[in-house]
Amino acid sequence: QGTRDHAPAQAALRERLLSAVVSCFKRHGAAAIDTPVLELRETLMGKYGEETKLIYELQDQGGELLALRYDLTVPFARYLAMNKVTNMKRYHVAKVYRRDNPATTRGRYREFYQCDFDIAGQFDPMIPDAECLKIVHEILSDLQLGDFVIKVNDRRILNGVFAVCGVPESKFIPACSTVDKLDKVPWEEVRSEMVGEKGLSPEAADRIGEYVQLHGGLDLIERLLQDPKLSQNKLAKEGLGDMKLLFEYLTLFGITGKISFDLSLARGLDYYTGVIFEAVLLQQENEHVEEAVSVGSVAGGGRYDGLVGMFDPKGRKVPCVGVSIGIERIFSILEQRLEASGEKLRTTETQVLVTTPHKHMLAARLKLISELWDAGIKAEMLYKKDPKLLKQLQYCEDTGIPLAAIVGEQELADGVVKLRDVATREEVRM
Amino acid sequence: QGTRDHAPAQAALRERLLSAVVSCFKRHGAAAIDTPVLELRETLMGKYGEETKLIYELQDQGGELLALRYDLTVPFARYLAMNKVTNMKRYHVAKVYRRDNPATTRGRYREFYQCDFDIAGQFDPMIPDAECLKIVHEILSDLQLGDFVIKVNDRRILNGVFAVCGVPESKFIPACSTVDKLDKVPWEEVRSEMVGEKGLSPEAADRIGEYVQLHGGLDLIERLLQDPKLSQNKLAKEGLGDMKLLFEYLTLFGITGKISFDLSLARGLDYYTGVIFEAVLLQQENEHVEEAVSVGSVAGGGRYDGLVGMFDPKGRKVPCVGVSIGIERIFSILEQRLEASGEKLRTTETQVLVTTPHKHMLAARLKLISELWDAGIKAEMLYKKDPKLLKQLQYCEDTGIPLAAIVGEQELADGVVKLRDVATREEVRM
Repeated sequence: QGTRDHAPAQAALRERLLSAVVSCFKRHGAAAIDTPVLELRETLMGKYGEETKLIYELQDQGGELLALRYDLTVPFARYLAMNKVTNMKRYHVAKVYRRDNPATTRGRYREFYQCDFDIAGQFDPMIPDAECLKIVHEILSDLQLGDFVIKVNDRRILNGVFAVCGVPESKFIPACSTVDKLDKVPWEEVRSEMVGEKGLSPEAADRIGEYVQLHGGLDLIERLLQDPKLSQNKLAKEGLGDMKLLFEYLTLFGITGKISFDLSLARGLDYYTGVIFEAVLLQQENEHVEEAVSVGSVAGGGRYDGLVGMFDPKGRKVPCVGVSIGIERIFSILEQRLEASGEKLRTTETQVLVTTPHKHMLAARLKLISELWDAGIKAEMLYKKDPKLLKQLQYCEDTGIPLAAIVGEQELADGVVKLRDVATREEVRM
Repeated sequence: QGTRDHAPAQAALRERLLSAVVSCFKRHGAAAIDTPVLELRETLMGKYGEETKLIYELQDQGGELLALRYDLTVPFARYLAMNKVTNMKRYHVAKVYRRDNPATTRGRYREFYQCDFDIAGQFDPMIPDAECLKIVHEILSDLQLGDFVIKVNDRRILNGVFAVCGVPESKFIPACSTVDKLDKVPWEEVRSEMVGEKGLSPEAADRIGEYVQLHGGLDLIERLLQDPKLSQNKLAKEGLGDMKLLFEYLTLFGITGKISFDLSLARGLDYYTGVIFEAVLLQQENEHVEEAVSVGSVAGGGRYDGLVGMFDPKGRKVPCVGVSIGIERIFSILEQRLEASGEKLRTTETQVLVTTPHKHMLAARLKLISELWDAGIKAEMLYKKDPKLLKQLQYCEDTGIPLAAIVGEQELADGVVKLRDVATREEVRM
């Protein structure tokens, strides 16, 4: 349940998609790493808050207690700490596992790919953070998924808001996870959860409401930097100062048109410590599809300066910022779009089919195809002793093979091969 | 235990290796499929004989009972049956899991990659089987692993041998698994296991010994086809007839020089029904390595005509033949060889580092690198506001970046960039 096989057409589409994403990661100078699908259970515990219950655990087999990885970020942090790496730009494309309720039509599975790019190391502020946003911008543009916006916020600004609104520090995390729902439910509902379930005072909730419904650009940052309350809060001031710097860099990258500083963005996971961001598609370009897929967020990430330290025996921190591309959701869109277009994706790369017009030519075909393979040419033949020419040409058309190399007795006697362009039916002897 | 992280250098080496293998699979017209790492536990049960105890099972979480896949063959057969596919040439490169005793120096892990190529469908005899052997030959030649031999046998010939030697049919499988040990222990030991543990008569064991110590080529096949006892056995006759055909095709492929018809080859798994084969390296090319790694078999496979039927509700069979490349053992060899050579594999593909010779040029660098990325050029910069030029050039040398694009105030004023070849120190303004 919640997993799927990929038939050749899907595997080919996925290869195309992953290769676009990996190209971008390589364009930004990232190296690949790989980690096991299995992690020690204790490595994953205490990293995902409420979501811990979704971790797949293996049977106790009298050795180590193991679990399937839940994401690629915690294994990366574990890798950095274990190998005492303090400086690395890496990407990792691999499957992760969540015992969630699957919603397969919307691209939500229990086994799914993640495509992560992260920059670890102590650097000047906001330069790696800006690059992560540039990467999201490049990938979503390359894939032509339609209009999108990348929402940006900072955990320090959110915590500053909570502080100046009179929320006790112990309630920052619950308040944060309530704010996170603002992209799905109206403020009134969020407010009543804050006051009811989370136990904030109605006055605090109202004050929070004034802030978290704001979104804009550099102008909003400037306004909040002048805000009499927020400007007095150390965390918020730091966050806003960095946000201003980030926008400066994003302006140089020429991508602020797609960026929205959005105070309602909170992100679920506990480990973020600074900038956070999330990309959403604004509308589906699905003219040909009857029912558009609702996909929500297609990329997200942020800064997590404390996670590596949790795995280091001496607690040494390695600041990190990274982004994860929501490849399954994008795959769902591309799959639907392909289906609607009626375009047929080739599932093989075969260049030439070795064929014969009549019987008793198997030896000649085997000899020729072997020469082609040895010359690095992608070649196939039908696994029949005496196939009909029509069947062979039909196979070319069905599978998109552009050329047929024909060997008959005449060709054999003349020491030539007849090469036929399957589409135009033109033939040359060579 | 028995798993490992891949650091960038290892990940790069593995990418190179997998890409050589996948190129070969694509050259032979295979399509990719993908299946989940998780399978229903019942899918895996009863397929691996004694090895079933090595399957990793997941905790019972109140839903389906799951396990990690043990190989890629059983999931492929399950895929064919589930989707009623009767004709397919596919490859699959993915991780599999075995709760075995790891021997990591010899490339034996609990999590490891398999690279499988299989041809499913009803075809004329031995044509797909010959292609599988051609693929092994191409891959081992391409990778320059040194001299190798591909041992070939047929389960029908082995069973025929057992029959004419007076082994009751119920003891074919135990006899088979005992014969399989002949590559590791001398005949005397195998014989005593047959007579002792497996309960064969000493006479039967002696008669088997005369056959299974034979190996050769077409001449041996011809001799056995004339063998007064074997030629009377239907199974053996079929197997020998097909073996002769196989050698005919392999002669056309020009690869019989590396093929040995070896009656001691038995292969462990139960599901083989016809041709079986296994490639072994004859010697290590490890002049520079003090202690050569003993790697054993580096590829293996065979025909399994009954496996798909086990997953079909009506038992409909789909004949299959396939090969699995032992990528971890090959990886161990390449890793040791690389280490011995002192060659440093680049872990990134960055073409140019955007640098500056003095302070206050961050904005110019960000603008330039953004243009490069948008033009599809692989570019990096140091994440520092004011890095020293020497440090920047050092970074190029450390990571193998061939070019440095230098922007200083003069260049900015002139509207040019200075492009420096890191190795030759030549510079051009452009």
